Amino acid sequence: MRIAVDAMGGDNAPGVVVEGSILAAREYPFEILLVGPQAILEGYLKNYNIGKEKISLINATQYVLMDEIPADAVRKKRDSSMHVCARLIKSGRADAMVTAGNTAAALAISRSILGKLKGVSRPALASIIPNMNDATILLDVGANAGSCMPEHLLEFALMGDIYSREVLGKDKPRIGLLSVGEERTKGSSITKEALPLLEKAPINFIGNVEGKEIVNGGADVVVCDGFVGNAILKFAEGASVMFFHVIKTEINRSLSAKIGMLLAKKALKAFTKKLDYENYGGAPILGINGACIIGHGKSSANAIKSAIRVASEFVSRDVNKSIEKSLLEMKQKIDIQLLSNEEE
Amino acid sequence: MRIAVDAMGGDNAPGVVVEGSILAAREYPFEILLVGPQAILEGYLKNYNIGKEKISLINATQYVLMDEIPADAVRKKRDSSMHVCARLIKSGRADAMVTAGNTAAALAISRSILGKLKGVSRPALASIIPNMNDATILLDVGANAGSCMPEHLLEFALMGDIYSREVLGKDKPRIGLLSVGEERTKGSSITKEALPLLEKAPINFIGNVEGKEIVNGGADVVVCDGFVGNAILKFAEGASVMFFHVIKTEINRSLSAKIGMLLAKKALKAFTKKLDYENYGGAPILGINGACIIGHGKSSANAIKSAIRVASEFVSRDVNKSIEKSLLEMKQKIDIQLLSNEEE
Repeated sequence: MRIAVDAMGGDNAPGVVVEGSILAAREYPFEILLVGPQAILEGYLKNYNIGKEKISLINATQYVLMDEIPADAVRKKRDSSMHVCARLIKSGRADAMVTAGNTAAALAISRSILGKLKGVSRPALASIIPNMNDATILLDVGANAGSCMPEHLLEFALMGDIYSREVLGKDKPRIGLLSVGEERTKGSSITKEALPLLEKAPINFIGNVEGKEIVNGGADVVVCDGFVGNAILKFAEGASVMFFHVIKTEINRSLSAKIGMLLAKKALKAFTKKLDYENYGGAPILGINGACIIGHGKSSANAIKSAIRVASEFVSRDVNKSIEKSLLEMKQKIDIQLLSNEEE
Repeated sequence: MRIAVDAMGGDNAPGVVVEGSILAAREYPFEILLVGPQAILEGYLKNYNIGKEKISLINATQYVLMDEIPADAVRKKRDSSMHVCARLIKSGRADAMVTAGNTAAALAISRSILGKLKGVSRPALASIIPNMNDATILLDVGANAGSCMPEHLLEFALMGDIYSREVLGKDKPRIGLLSVGEERTKGSSITKEALPLLEKAPINFIGNVEGKEIVNGGADVVVCDGFVGNAILKFAEGASVMFFHVIKTEINRSLSAKIGMLLAKKALKAFTKKLDYENYGGAPILGINGACIIGHGKSSANAIKSAIRVASEFVSRDVNKSIEKSLLEMKQKIDIQLLSNEEE
């Protein structure tokens, strides 16, 4: 298996990306294609004692900036490391790609180069959010902002179900529809229409769920429009930063508190590790004709390594084939059911 | 001033509500009308040594359950403590009401009994969310789920601006429009249309903001559709519960961590106090013809006291008069500007 890694993506690229790629190459059996300006990457690789690791450099003369407008990145940077990664998949030279770069640009570039899977009308970005017990998949978190119709939410549910089973290894993932209350009568006109569609789908649908279910372990997959999902994801990131800032400020005011924190260091580390997105290896784009995992911009080398592992699982578990199959079957089934309803 | 308090609202009602009302009556100069089944409330009041405090009991034979369907509560419980509170305002016997009961029912009942303010098309529920420095108002958080048009978001911005100035005491509140990116081109079709309206409004509008701005102190007021706001609010509550659960579990595994936490106790208390919704006294409903503050279901006696104080400020600062005036002026101004644009 070959994974293309966008060496120029992320706040700390290419340093941590190169390091993460080497960690992955040392631990896993697959080949890493490190994509970026060759001269720069060679400089970074010199720092490592590369032996048998399977790492190749693939040259890309440009790279997408973290705050670049996606449409500009798609059109004006055709030789960016992101473009090259996607083209490596398209041409069959790579099986998957990993980038910790500009999320919106990665979505736009991978969609435009790789296209959609058969039966998918809206690819979705799925985020893996730590919960009380393990992690919940929230999708869409930004590929479709405010434009999702009920049938798109149905597609998200099916794709999230497959990812939860195949990559996160859950048996019968509980799928919830994000709404403002659990009752059937609660929600927007879109979610109210989506509810009966999801009930007919061959998934373990648990009905409407509220925002708290994303983190309390009450659902394995939560589907929503990309506008809501993105707002929640950004809120969560901001809240986490705020939380640690406020706690640090208070701790630093007192010597006994500082000593206390030292004593509790191990427990606090276990705590932060448990809630760390790094363990889940980044956000997959579901529904495109290729495997693309987007890491957090602040990804550490370990997070990059995790994302590479997840990308390989995405491929080896044949997630995309399952998505196409499931969407096809479901669409036939629901059409038949809708017809039978009409005939009654 | 007279504040009607729904003694039966909240997970720990009537105990903590009675206690909070007495705390308020002892500290503040206004009169409390404690509303609920008289016999029950008399039993609770017996436990207190009531002296000069101005507390009166108002009988209500019914009360709304925390999980009752709002429409049922409105129609079938016309003598509920919530209904009676709202009618006390309507008849001029109370200036404001406070409830920590079923939020959706409180919204429905207060709207149906008190009606809307002149110029308001959609009342909104505003939540006060602790941020890096103080607190940000997020609205709407559930009065309108998925049905907000651009002009409704404009109304929310104007109402949030007034509440931020008059009750939270901010000078020139920075108002943001929740979206999926700061660029003008980002967002749903609704937020894209709302953007130019907000730019024309006589407020300190800072443009599109992301979810993180709700907590990082980058905005004083963030406006959004009630579906998104509610999802974020519920997510925040769930995340906070999850966070403390996970940290407690890890701490309890180690003796040194437990000792450490004891040493840091004061700092941790300061930290939780800083992030405690209790300090902000509950969520106001903006845009109805009356002052109604909704406390958290888990409100402590102190939180009830805060909510009573906030209710009195809502009245004494004449928030509703300002809202009517502001909406009227703005609507005239924007109409004129739209006309002048068309004439160009």
